[in-house]
Amino acid sequence: MDSKFVYSFEEGNAKMRELLGGKGSNLAEMTNMGLPVPSGFTITTEACKEYYKNNQQLSPNIILQIEDYIQKLELSSNKKFGDSDNPLLVSVRSGARASMPGMMDTILNLGLNDRVANGLIKKTKNKRFVLDSYRRFIQMFSDVVMNIPNKNFEIIIQEIKQLKNIKLDTELNVTDLENIINKFKQHYKEQKGVDFPSSPQEQLIEAIKAVFRSWNNPRAIYYRQLNDIPSDWGTAVNIQMMVFGNMGDTSGTGVAFTRNASTGENKPFGEFLMNAQGEDVVAGIRTPKPIDNLKQIMPNIYDEFVSISKKLENHYKDMQDMEFTIEEGKLYILQTRNGKRTPSAALKIACDMVDEGKISKKEALLMIDPRSLNSLLHPQFDIKILEKLTPIASGLPASPGAASGKIVFNANDAIEEAKKGEKIILVRSETSPEDIEGMNLSEGILTMQGGITSHAAVVARGIGKCCVSGCSKIQINEKQNYMKIEDKTYNKGDSISLDGSTGKVYGEAIPTVKATISDNFKTIMDWADEYSNLQVRANADTPSDAKQAISFGAKGIGLCRTEHMFFETNRIRAIRQMILSKTEDQRKKALDKLLPMQQKDFEEIYEVLAGKPVTIRLLDPPLHEFIPTDEAEQENLAVDINVPIEKIKSTISSLHEFNPMMGHRGCRLAITYPEIAIMQTTAIINAAINTLKKHSNWNLTPEIMIPLVGDIHELQYIKSIVVKTADSLISSAKTNLKYKVGTMIEIPRAAITADEIAKDAEFFSFGTNDLTQMTFGFSRDDAGKFLKSYYKKDIYAQDPFEKLDKHGVGKLIKIACKLGKKTRPNIKLGICGEHGGDPSSIEFFNEIGLDYVSCSPYRVPLARLATAQATIKLEKTI
Amino acid sequence: MDSKFVYSFEEGNAKMRELLGGKGSNLAEMTNMGLPVPSGFTITTEACKEYYKNNQQLSPNIILQIEDYIQKLELSSNKKFGDSDNPLLVSVRSGARASMPGMMDTILNLGLNDRVANGLIKKTKNKRFVLDSYRRFIQMFSDVVMNIPNKNFEIIIQEIKQLKNIKLDTELNVTDLENIINKFKQHYKEQKGVDFPSSPQEQLIEAIKAVFRSWNNPRAIYYRQLNDIPSDWGTAVNIQMMVFGNMGDTSGTGVAFTRNASTGENKPFGEFLMNAQGEDVVAGIRTPKPIDNLKQIMPNIYDEFVSISKKLENHYKDMQDMEFTIEEGKLYILQTRNGKRTPSAALKIACDMVDEGKISKKEALLMIDPRSLNSLLHPQFDIKILEKLTPIASGLPASPGAASGKIVFNANDAIEEAKKGEKIILVRSETSPEDIEGMNLSEGILTMQGGITSHAAVVARGIGKCCVSGCSKIQINEKQNYMKIEDKTYNKGDSISLDGSTGKVYGEAIPTVKATISDNFKTIMDWADEYSNLQVRANADTPSDAKQAISFGAKGIGLCRTEHMFFETNRIRAIRQMILSKTEDQRKKALDKLLPMQQKDFEEIYEVLAGKPVTIRLLDPPLHEFIPTDEAEQENLAVDINVPIEKIKSTISSLHEFNPMMGHRGCRLAITYPEIAIMQTTAIINAAINTLKKHSNWNLTPEIMIPLVGDIHELQYIKSIVVKTADSLISSAKTNLKYKVGTMIEIPRAAITADEIAKDAEFFSFGTNDLTQMTFGFSRDDAGKFLKSYYKKDIYAQDPFEKLDKHGVGKLIKIACKLGKKTRPNIKLGICGEHGGDPSSIEFFNEIGLDYVSCSPYRVPLARLATAQATIKLEKTI
Repeated sequence: MDSKFVYSFEEGNAKMRELLGGKGSNLAEMTNMGLPVPSGFTITTEACKEYYKNNQQLSPNIILQIEDYIQKLELSSNKKFGDSDNPLLVSVRSGARASMPGMMDTILNLGLNDRVANGLIKKTKNKRFVLDSYRRFIQMFSDVVMNIPNKNFEIIIQEIKQLKNIKLDTELNVTDLENIINKFKQHYKEQKGVDFPSSPQEQLIEAIKAVFRSWNNPRAIYYRQLNDIPSDWGTAVNIQMMVFGNMGDTSGTGVAFTRNASTGENKPFGEFLMNAQGEDVVAGIRTPKPIDNLKQIMPNIYDEFVSISKKLENHYKDMQDMEFTIEEGKLYILQTRNGKRTPSAALKIACDMVDEGKISKKEALLMIDPRSLNSLLHPQFDIKILEKLTPIASGLPASPGAASGKIVFNANDAIEEAKKGEKIILVRSETSPEDIEGMNLSEGILTMQGGITSHAAVVARGIGKCCVSGCSKIQINEKQNYMKIEDKTYNKGDSISLDGSTGKVYGEAIPTVKATISDNFKTIMDWADEYSNLQVRANADTPSDAKQAISFGAKGIGLCRTEHMFFETNRIRAIRQMILSKTEDQRKKALDKLLPMQQKDFEEIYEVLAGKPVTIRLLDPPLHEFIPTDEAEQENLAVDINVPIEKIKSTISSLHEFNPMMGHRGCRLAITYPEIAIMQTTAIINAAINTLKKHSNWNLTPEIMIPLVGDIHELQYIKSIVVKTADSLISSAKTNLKYKVGTMIEIPRAAITADEIAKDAEFFSFGTNDLTQMTFGFSRDDAGKFLKSYYKKDIYAQDPFEKLDKHGVGKLIKIACKLGKKTRPNIKLGICGEHGGDPSSIEFFNEIGLDYVSCSPYRVPLARLATAQATIKLEKTI
Repeated sequence: MDSKFVYSFEEGNAKMRELLGGKGSNLAEMTNMGLPVPSGFTITTEACKEYYKNNQQLSPNIILQIEDYIQKLELSSNKKFGDSDNPLLVSVRSGARASMPGMMDTILNLGLNDRVANGLIKKTKNKRFVLDSYRRFIQMFSDVVMNIPNKNFEIIIQEIKQLKNIKLDTELNVTDLENIINKFKQHYKEQKGVDFPSSPQEQLIEAIKAVFRSWNNPRAIYYRQLNDIPSDWGTAVNIQMMVFGNMGDTSGTGVAFTRNASTGENKPFGEFLMNAQGEDVVAGIRTPKPIDNLKQIMPNIYDEFVSISKKLENHYKDMQDMEFTIEEGKLYILQTRNGKRTPSAALKIACDMVDEGKISKKEALLMIDPRSLNSLLHPQFDIKILEKLTPIASGLPASPGAASGKIVFNANDAIEEAKKGEKIILVRSETSPEDIEGMNLSEGILTMQGGITSHAAVVARGIGKCCVSGCSKIQINEKQNYMKIEDKTYNKGDSISLDGSTGKVYGEAIPTVKATISDNFKTIMDWADEYSNLQVRANADTPSDAKQAISFGAKGIGLCRTEHMFFETNRIRAIRQMILSKTEDQRKKALDKLLPMQQKDFEEIYEVLAGKPVTIRLLDPPLHEFIPTDEAEQENLAVDINVPIEKIKSTISSLHEFNPMMGHRGCRLAITYPEIAIMQTTAIINAAINTLKKHSNWNLTPEIMIPLVGDIHELQYIKSIVVKTADSLISSAKTNLKYKVGTMIEIPRAAITADEIAKDAEFFSFGTNDLTQMTFGFSRDDAGKFLKSYYKKDIYAQDPFEKLDKHGVGKLIKIACKLGKKTRPNIKLGICGEHGGDPSSIEFFNEIGLDYVSCSPYRVPLARLATAQATIKLEKTI
């Protein structure tokens, strides 16, 4: 039996979204609910796949089915396709599974030709309307279906307008339009060598193919990539009888939401125009009226519309966004879908609908996009001011929020100016760990190089600073303290503004509005925690990070990167002394200086956590990250710690690595220099002993995490040092402090030998950043260059550093979990890479049964909601 | 029941090598064969493991068993431990599963104290001998067991010799020896605070513990690492009744082989000394006599010895290396083991023993160490001249062979001088791909940096050139054309010599002896091919490499790296033009220049292979490898291809990568620049079409290999380009040429998604170099720095780049094979990383059922033998 590729609206329903697309399945659902929907049918997404399989041709079988359904439509509408007396005109519109507004193509008024147009003029007695529709159809069809640039047609219209010295399209009279239609047809023939197709059947088939083709136009591909929509879904095509809102004073058209999309208020929200077509509402030539006004003009229609919209909201259990047309006093619904809304409206609508008893708490949680929460936590620009400004450049939206301030080009200046009370924007080619203090004191960070997982981006998200990265349009002269954008120079002290949510850079100061957390926000977070199986911890390196994380509801710290404690002036000096040491003894002396500082940090962090769990990672980055790269700074260092400059240079050269990402770092450091692990363990354990003295009832169990393990013997070697150090301190202090030793799983070899590693690891924390790098074999710093081609050529759908690659990296994680549990059934499993804050990755982590995810403090609310959603979705599937 | 930790020689046999060690199991075997072996017993390797588990203590159970077996030994020897009338003296010697000559410790004459010594003097009437033995025992015991430096004792002897103005130990009289013994004991007490232990029982237990400890002394660890001996094997300890070869003219001692260890001639080979102890043979004070002479001195003993040695050789089916002692006219065998031999002797012995009907061909193949074949393929220094010379420096033995020549410091000079007919040694800090032509024309390569898998090492082994890498003692000034070693300067044109098998560098020219391939060599190779299941191919990039590989018996080319064809002057210019192109069009023009050259290379390679298979890899390295790093060369390039120098500099800076190993290379290049893949496919296919025109009967099926694939979509994208290009050429040429498209599996993600990748890959070739890097997460260029600590701390037993890590990387390979075969049961599986030439890795590849290994041409004979051994060993186990 041949497959069925076409469904009338009567044959479908809302559950058939995969096959019929969003628009088609909703049209079918509404038809079967008895709502006034113009008749029509849907060509399925399967037909789209067939079309691509079949070398971009429609198979005879599909064409036959389409013809069959056109006949059915003729019967039900009592009109005839291509008939001059009572012609059937149709719209041809795309409709994918996921909403992709404006991304693909639409053709209206299809079925027109000279003969049909004449018939329609007779029937409607509105020659101007018919000719304008015909003109629009030729233009739309030539552009969308035949690839003749729309611009060419606009030029023809422009020429006639100039000749007649008029400005608006509406000033064109009937003769002008006839003239234009003739010139359009002529241009079509010049371009294509044949006449404009007058057969409605041919128009229809070509239009359907064009919609299928539009699935792969560049803006659709880009949109899919941005919104994680798989390229193999395909789009459906909807063929629907045209109804006209421009047939006189009892006709009209409009767009409306069931609730206010901006504030969430429970009241219809939208606008309409009488005697108009859909296009006119959007075009902005006439000003549409608020939907309320319809009550006065056509009270019955308004009541009918409100009743339908309530029905739809109750039916879909979500706020709806509807298109409608009134044709000679009769209301038609052309489309409904869940309405887009602002993040704060989303929270209010969800809470209100629970209060109204329309949905459950679980349903409310599923209604909110976790990613939208981010913007509620960060300051924002005043949208009204922003609208009037033009950005001077644009980079990657690396860390959300808005920031204004005076620019500086190095971290030292940032510190100096910030201490004077200035608001600072730090502008760098790229940042490095030495910049952290300066970054912390700035309002925002702008970099020329690096992607959204670059150092600047990761750190900025961690501390909740706004950041725009990879803004390649700026040219920075860090030595002479200026940057150029095109021809304009910006000096140190000039004001700029950054929008970290859009990546835009503005050349002036813009006032910002502080973020406040609403009651609805708190309610949703409480509900989320109620339903979530997966704990949310935070990646936090300092007491203030930890505080922020706890205030956002983190249940502990999943990653405390000890090296971030080393960059303050006093500390960096000691760590540099350690690196420049020749003997173990010298190294120990330098480490002795660091010990009390690090111990104090841990005491403060434990204090903030008040017994919540904390996973502390031993020193991880390669040592060269601690040594200044700048010659002048090297000279300062030489004086500062009284070492000849040659010594510093030779150390730098000996620390040079070809591939630092694959070099001497992670646990490899502690194997070469066990004294580092000893110092860090001492700080961790002594701090815990001191804290427990003050708070004996706290359940304080430090989790010591050994990074970058690839082989059980690495773990065993370092664990034995940690345990020896810790046990001796604990026994001297005569306490019964417990601690755990575990490892990061971030090397492929660790994942596939996890059964062995679990012998000595009491917990695993997946470091998905590194694991992704090693599994794919590319570094995130270098991949930016070629991944662009990958997206363009449809090789990758999205950046594996943003969204976990479930198929490859995820498979390794699954293997590691399985092997780990085989050896140690109660092993604690978590993840602390950037993916800990990505909803789709969280869904995967929940599926495979991890115990917690850890993400940067400002992502904690997002993650709390995402973990709840993941849990609820998983319940549904089982 | 308590375990049995001690076995008398009667209780053991040769099959118990794991438990009793090599020495112990052979002593047991000989005892049971009825050969004259002094009685004794063995403490097992399990006892050694217990000792380490038990915090380096012997458990009471083990001590009890030892005491029990001492009593048994007293009974069988009719002597008594610690008895003054008829004392039992014993030797305590280590004996691991694998032979580790001289690596661990031995204590002789144990059981002596003042009282026993006096008794023995009475018994032997040889006071000087007894005192000398006593002196040696104290010295050996103090050094080996108690860690008092041997040097201290030598100083005491030295002082007495100076006082008496004598030079040789033999000149010391009985009084001197008594004096020395007293001073020794005194020194012992000063160092240890207690008297030298006089209890034989205490001496024994401490000595046994010392032997166990010696398993982990630095030189034993180093030896194990060098010889792939696992550190958890442990050593056994042999306790054996002393027999003395120095009891007069009817006593003696010697060492002999059953055949000539140097030439393989079937004739006893060795030496002996009458009235002497084992030590004296080694010490070189008296000159030992050839074993033949024993025939005259003690004909019966000689006949008995020859008869025993034949018996042992027949029994062990291998040439034996024996130690014997004659005590007062009675022959004792103290040890037998398979004798070490030169590589050419090994071949002769194996072939001879097959001819003699003593062993089968399979047994003969298993007798030869594949690694020993290497030296037979390369020129060697005249050993007699070499012995008299002192090396000026020493690096890593990166590629075997010997080379003498005049030094130059850059590839251009190498080319220039070589063309004048000079023999050249190329000295570089490190080499890069631009140096290949120069390397090819040099006799040998010496580098300051880089390990045995550095660029220099890999290329040198590939082309069979001698190479010493990582010689950190030299300081090179490449600009000013000189190098310094300590204070001596070597200028361009000075002669040096390199020994690539030892890593030694000599400061003068040394004549070399050319390698010749013997008949025995050919015989062994033929037998190897007869029994091997695993095909051996070669990694060969040029027609001359291919020729070499075929002459060594390669069955095809498993890896032809196309980029190596690009480094000749004309070609590098075109490739640089391509890299500096701004548009696709410019790139195509540059590629058009390369096409005929590359096509010609392929035609020549096909011609050499005469229908044997060849796998050609598309362009792999990052593009920056083709651009000169030197400023002056960059300026030349600018002039040469008429591009402003700023353009070149900006291209270099845009090509810069943080981690080039994880950057824009492999298939990622062809995705960004498909025109490269098109040009290369065209060259491969056109060359094949042309070749088939000449040789229509050849089975020429080019295998096009796409490198660094991590995701099926990468492969699909490039494969579609390759197939489209190839099919169009084939159809235009109206031939029916077949070709295959496959991929390298060298990214962990490719291994774990191999089921998907096999949908489009007709073959997999495992690139174990990269796969090892990515799986471990360290780059081979950077790992050298920290792997030293890993070996020292017993974290890794060996370099995973030399010997495949079966446990981790091997697991991934197994997964990939399984998944690949699931999708495509007849998929062809091979390996083309460096491990293709490593015997233990080959064994693994055979076990998991690969179809072929591919290695550098000079490793082909080694691999042929190793694959045969692997097949034979696997047969045995199933």
